[in-house]
Amino acid sequence: MMRLADIGEDALVSRLLAQLPEAPAELLVGPGDDCAVVPFSVSEWQLLKTDAIVEGVHFLPGENRRRVGWKAIARVVSDFAAMGGRPRWFLITVGIPADAAIAPLEELYQGMAHCLQAYGAALVGGETTRVPSQSGLFVSIAATGIVEKSHLLLRSTARRGDMVFVTGRLGGSLAGRHLDIQPRLAEAHWLASRGFATAMMDLSDGMAQDLPRLARASGLGFSVDTNALPCHEGASVAQALRDGEDYELLFTCDPALAEQLLPEWREVFPDTPLTSIGRMVDMAESMHLSGGWDHFAPLSAP
Amino acid sequence: MMRLADIGEDALVSRLLAQLPEAPAELLVGPGDDCAVVPFSVSEWQLLKTDAIVEGVHFLPGENRRRVGWKAIARVVSDFAAMGGRPRWFLITVGIPADAAIAPLEELYQGMAHCLQAYGAALVGGETTRVPSQSGLFVSIAATGIVEKSHLLLRSTARRGDMVFVTGRLGGSLAGRHLDIQPRLAEAHWLASRGFATAMMDLSDGMAQDLPRLARASGLGFSVDTNALPCHEGASVAQALRDGEDYELLFTCDPALAEQLLPEWREVFPDTPLTSIGRMVDMAESMHLSGGWDHFAPLSAP
Repeated sequence: MMRLADIGEDALVSRLLAQLPEAPAELLVGPGDDCAVVPFSVSEWQLLKTDAIVEGVHFLPGENRRRVGWKAIARVVSDFAAMGGRPRWFLITVGIPADAAIAPLEELYQGMAHCLQAYGAALVGGETTRVPSQSGLFVSIAATGIVEKSHLLLRSTARRGDMVFVTGRLGGSLAGRHLDIQPRLAEAHWLASRGFATAMMDLSDGMAQDLPRLARASGLGFSVDTNALPCHEGASVAQALRDGEDYELLFTCDPALAEQLLPEWREVFPDTPLTSIGRMVDMAESMHLSGGWDHFAPLSAP
Repeated sequence: MMRLADIGEDALVSRLLAQLPEAPAELLVGPGDDCAVVPFSVSEWQLLKTDAIVEGVHFLPGENRRRVGWKAIARVVSDFAAMGGRPRWFLITVGIPADAAIAPLEELYQGMAHCLQAYGAALVGGETTRVPSQSGLFVSIAATGIVEKSHLLLRSTARRGDMVFVTGRLGGSLAGRHLDIQPRLAEAHWLASRGFATAMMDLSDGMAQDLPRLARASGLGFSVDTNALPCHEGASVAQALRDGEDYELLFTCDPALAEQLLPEWREVFPDTPLTSIGRMVDMAESMHLSGGWDHFAPLSAP
């Protein structure tokens, strides 16, 4: 019998989506990008996103619950940023064993409230549900966002010859940084509104997983200098490729604009590194990266 | 240390919501009704809803996964119906142990797809995530719906003296009926567009839990003849009050309109029973009901 650990997350998602009927025509972007994109107003698209974190998988049972709450919201804010949009309405579903203590749950909500306020979003609903006592807590976030039609950035629109850029530094997030994510909302909005990016996504599962996804969505390959990857202090290139949970922006840019991008960026975001790491090439010429976070890979994997 | 089982679901939700800042003014309805209601277009509101089902709580591990998938979607369709609206876009988050088999997951998605098609909705995204191996599967549904502004029905708008009606039959759902819900979308749309209902909700946690919620939201009490409750064959009045998972409509109606409602209903929905069970009264004169489904009540409770 085939099990999830045998095939990995991307193959699983493909098999599940194959069970569904064809998407309706008014749906601009369905499963496969950071968010779904559906009609909203004459000048805007609505972005829809869900994301879950699970005790024992995305955070440890003893972890500070305010930080866990912040992370749960911030991950979704990062997805809206990656599309060139901004977050708006959030709904929170929490699955809790009946014998769970209440105080840590209140702390979880305090952390979520803090992050919602920081990024101009609001909680409008959700629910609590019981899970069996041997199960871990789960927090499932659903949210709507909004994006100007002219600002929308997808994974699928990179062009051959585009340069590949990444913001911030990568690797070593699991030492604790993954709980204190600062989504690149301002940077992403600037890139989208200035027209610098041809395609964009956020780095959640590690460069080695996420860059191939962007390339595949665009029908292209990539050639990157892994030694050029901007690593966090103490993190190796291997960690920058595989650790995940960086929540930095990965985007492509027409080389003709790159000369203009870099000096303007340094002026507007002097504290956020921006690094050119390579180029988009034909699929047949693509290099391959290994590592990165697959939710269903055997736990002994690197 | 205070634990969830000590205080129950409604008190928990109140405590968690107290951690959040005040809701923004443009939010028409926040936590507390069947759905959140947010701005959409000149003539329509958008409805937002999340709902989760958990293995070992809402369905048994060996249960037919197509029926589980149908139920997961149908519960949310029922919530949109209860607001006078219709379902539109769905996102599905599934938490799965890494050693889970793939075929039952495909069946789950087949059941969800079947229900989405039946009610004119579409899946646009979601994600899969790993849960620890001792945890049960969870399915968290997030969805948007749409409602004509003139059709919106809340829990909070019942008036003193209104008659209380319920559709269909109640009780005994746990024998298996809870997996084959047929949300009352057509009936709800008719009630909302004809202006018969003053307040409405769907019965998910049992009459004894849900009617007091509608009354409380409206600042009123209720007086019902429990012997008038329309019970499913083989179900007792006590079961009709406490079993939950009926997914019938509970609504209030101005007595001046009730004489018109009943004959019209019988003509349009000859196969759906409609029963008058009582009246809305002042809070101080309210009767009390016991029973119903509380997610965090001790498992030994009736």
